[in-house]
Amino acid sequence: MTAYEPSQNIKMTEEGLNQLRQSISEMVENGEVDQLQAMLSKLHPSDIADLFPRLGRLEQNFVWDLLPEELSPDVLVELDDPAQGQLLDTLSEGEIGRIVDELDSDDAADVVGALDDEKAQKVLETLDLESRRDVRRLLTYDEETAGGIMALEVASVKETETVGQAIKTLRDLGEKEGIEDIYNIYVVSEEGLLRGWLNLAQLILAHPETPVRELMNPDVISVPTSMDQEEVAAIVRKYDLVSLPVVDDFGRLVGRITVDDVVDVLAEEAEEDISIIAGTGDEDPSERSAFKVFRERIPWLLTAMVGGLVSATVMQHFEATLLHIIALAFFVPVITAMGGNTGVQSSSIVVRGLATGEIRIRDLIPRVFKEVRVALLNGIVLGVVLGLIVSIWLGQPQLGLFIGLILMLNIGIASILGVSVPILLKKLGVDPALAMGPFVTTANDIIGLMIYLGMAMVFLI
Amino acid sequence: MTAYEPSQNIKMTEEGLNQLRQSISEMVENGEVDQLQAMLSKLHPSDIADLFPRLGRLEQNFVWDLLPEELSPDVLVELDDPAQGQLLDTLSEGEIGRIVDELDSDDAADVVGALDDEKAQKVLETLDLESRRDVRRLLTYDEETAGGIMALEVASVKETETVGQAIKTLRDLGEKEGIEDIYNIYVVSEEGLLRGWLNLAQLILAHPETPVRELMNPDVISVPTSMDQEEVAAIVRKYDLVSLPVVDDFGRLVGRITVDDVVDVLAEEAEEDISIIAGTGDEDPSERSAFKVFRERIPWLLTAMVGGLVSATVMQHFEATLLHIIALAFFVPVITAMGGNTGVQSSSIVVRGLATGEIRIRDLIPRVFKEVRVALLNGIVLGVVLGLIVSIWLGQPQLGLFIGLILMLNIGIASILGVSVPILLKKLGVDPALAMGPFVTTANDIIGLMIYLGMAMVFLI
Repeated sequence: MTAYEPSQNIKMTEEGLNQLRQSISEMVENGEVDQLQAMLSKLHPSDIADLFPRLGRLEQNFVWDLLPEELSPDVLVELDDPAQGQLLDTLSEGEIGRIVDELDSDDAADVVGALDDEKAQKVLETLDLESRRDVRRLLTYDEETAGGIMALEVASVKETETVGQAIKTLRDLGEKEGIEDIYNIYVVSEEGLLRGWLNLAQLILAHPETPVRELMNPDVISVPTSMDQEEVAAIVRKYDLVSLPVVDDFGRLVGRITVDDVVDVLAEEAEEDISIIAGTGDEDPSERSAFKVFRERIPWLLTAMVGGLVSATVMQHFEATLLHIIALAFFVPVITAMGGNTGVQSSSIVVRGLATGEIRIRDLIPRVFKEVRVALLNGIVLGVVLGLIVSIWLGQPQLGLFIGLILMLNIGIASILGVSVPILLKKLGVDPALAMGPFVTTANDIIGLMIYLGMAMVFLI
Repeated sequence: MTAYEPSQNIKMTEEGLNQLRQSISEMVENGEVDQLQAMLSKLHPSDIADLFPRLGRLEQNFVWDLLPEELSPDVLVELDDPAQGQLLDTLSEGEIGRIVDELDSDDAADVVGALDDEKAQKVLETLDLESRRDVRRLLTYDEETAGGIMALEVASVKETETVGQAIKTLRDLGEKEGIEDIYNIYVVSEEGLLRGWLNLAQLILAHPETPVRELMNPDVISVPTSMDQEEVAAIVRKYDLVSLPVVDDFGRLVGRITVDDVVDVLAEEAEEDISIIAGTGDEDPSERSAFKVFRERIPWLLTAMVGGLVSATVMQHFEATLLHIIALAFFVPVITAMGGNTGVQSSSIVVRGLATGEIRIRDLIPRVFKEVRVALLNGIVLGVVLGLIVSIWLGQPQLGLFIGLILMLNIGIASILGVSVPILLKKLGVDPALAMGPFVTTANDIIGLMIYLGMAMVFLI
């Protein structure tokens, strides 16, 4: 009861981690090897992984060398990029091979996949035949699919076995492959086709002579190796699953995904979407170097500034029009803001729908029609309100009518772009969330301004 | 193997659900009661819940009445709002009571919590003493805390028991409270203090006379009832947990949270953040009525338009300045876009950090200092680039210098607002993601314009 009492969750916070970091720095400085080793052995691998990037290079090497052997594989797996990459650079192929051998196949493939080709080859050569084959096989799947996140270690028994034989099979699997967490046991045919599932309690309570076929639950939800990881997450969420079997194109059981992988997928996808929308790259909230943060953010800001300069040239092009009716300039922020907001609204629904599988690429046309209907309603209400306000405020009904109509048009175009850009991005294999980010909103500004000022030149002057 | 084969996951899509809906409509119309009942009994409760909102009122009543009795509690729980509320309105207190009796305590509390006070009282009166006490107790916790998402049904044994006694205790719990999914078994002291944990396999493989105290793993991660659900999710994610014990202020075990609840929390929080950022309210990607979508979006757009009109009055106020130097108008989109983008970048990091607990309310001051340093770097680079471009392009070095300096100032202010607004919102108990939405970006536009044009009037004319 010493290590993870409730109060110790404080390690999760920056404050707690900084305290730990300071103690470690002092121990390294004073050469208190035994104390440091004792402290490390009491920490959870996930906490050590959180701490690691906060240490200096020298301290990192010190800590890594002192880590109890049974902890280092877990620490390596839990490390975020770029800390994991930096550590892997300092380790020899032999050391990495020994660690990879201890890992489950999905984690092993992730580590080998993070190495450059040459080093990956050398690490693979140090593995035994079976692990090498497993890792090679997992590396063939796209990282963001069911195949890319599944593990090959799966507790399965044959439908033709009896309960007694099945228990023995599982015990052997536990000894040989180290499958410890048995949430669900899958039942397969002689040919390996997925037939049903059982839980451990059912198996233990049944008579040893009962055939597995009679005991199993034949209603089993499975996914193909090619399914996108966000869709996998949606299925696990919908059906409240703890583990999910993965099948190949023939329906043969090839692996299983556990809910902790899905938790990671959901959290990562949400973070990724928000970073893309905001233009912050891979920035970590705990990053302390202002220069590194600056480096993550500046490309997005420069792009937005270039977009703003294009807007400026558009406006310069219509300098005469603006000088003639200066009131046109007053409504530039309204036109750009309304286009931006409408576009982002349309995009966000599509981005969410594409993520959960509720919207497909082939839904493009009906989706656009739906958005046009919504845009019509929004455009009429907002256009009439803005038109009336401008007419009364400036006493220029003609200008009011013009601005109201332009707003309607602007809302229509922004909505159509808002719904079609994410679907087209998805089709091109690009993250649809980009449609909510600075690039597309800047493009919307430029298009809106060109229409606004171009039409003004034609109709008002 | 009939109901949930891989290919049947197509029900997840709008297309599959619409096909099912059509079959149901036809069966209802033709009065094919037996066929409909047979079809429903083969569906997963989660699929029925997805289907339900797509049916007409009459069809919903028909389907509900034909549902196999063992499915209706699960269907009710899986229904999203507002479909759940509508269904609850049509059911009597007695019917709701019978369903609530079948549910786990956390789901029971959610259903009772969704009723109005009077109906909730009446439903509570139909429950037996113990369920009533459980639901009442759970309803005292804030919905978005560990207490609000935990269930009271928890598999626990005493540290003073032997393995044999513990197995008997668990068997009794299974019969009495229907605890079926035993991921982890928690060990408590005589006073109910959480001491450690075990898994079922450990218990079954151990000698019946072994004391539980010797077998248990004392390193147990737990959370207090008051912890925010997003922090709970971050802990489950970090430590790859399948279930997590919840303790009261004295360290006594009071409930448990399972990973499926955490999966829901993560998915809901991500969707909520994106809707708030985009200004789409509770809009569902599968919503088919353009009018309902319009009603969700128009308030946000009207607010943004009011903000745009405030910008317009600011610009009208500086009409003379603009007419004097019309080039000032050209850079209005640059000034507003850069302020908006910088502000959203700063906010997004804080919103994410607050969600995972990496940033706390008390971090306000150091965070602001960090953002100021980043803003200084961004401001210098972007200000110099913009200043040079304007100087060369328009041949007006004085204007270039002015616009460059204003951009630096603008980036600084937007960064400070971007980092402090979400922290202040959190302090006020409001969702920090609002800081990334239309309200704050509009406010940024107005402040940026006032500084830009006000300074121009003072220094350039």
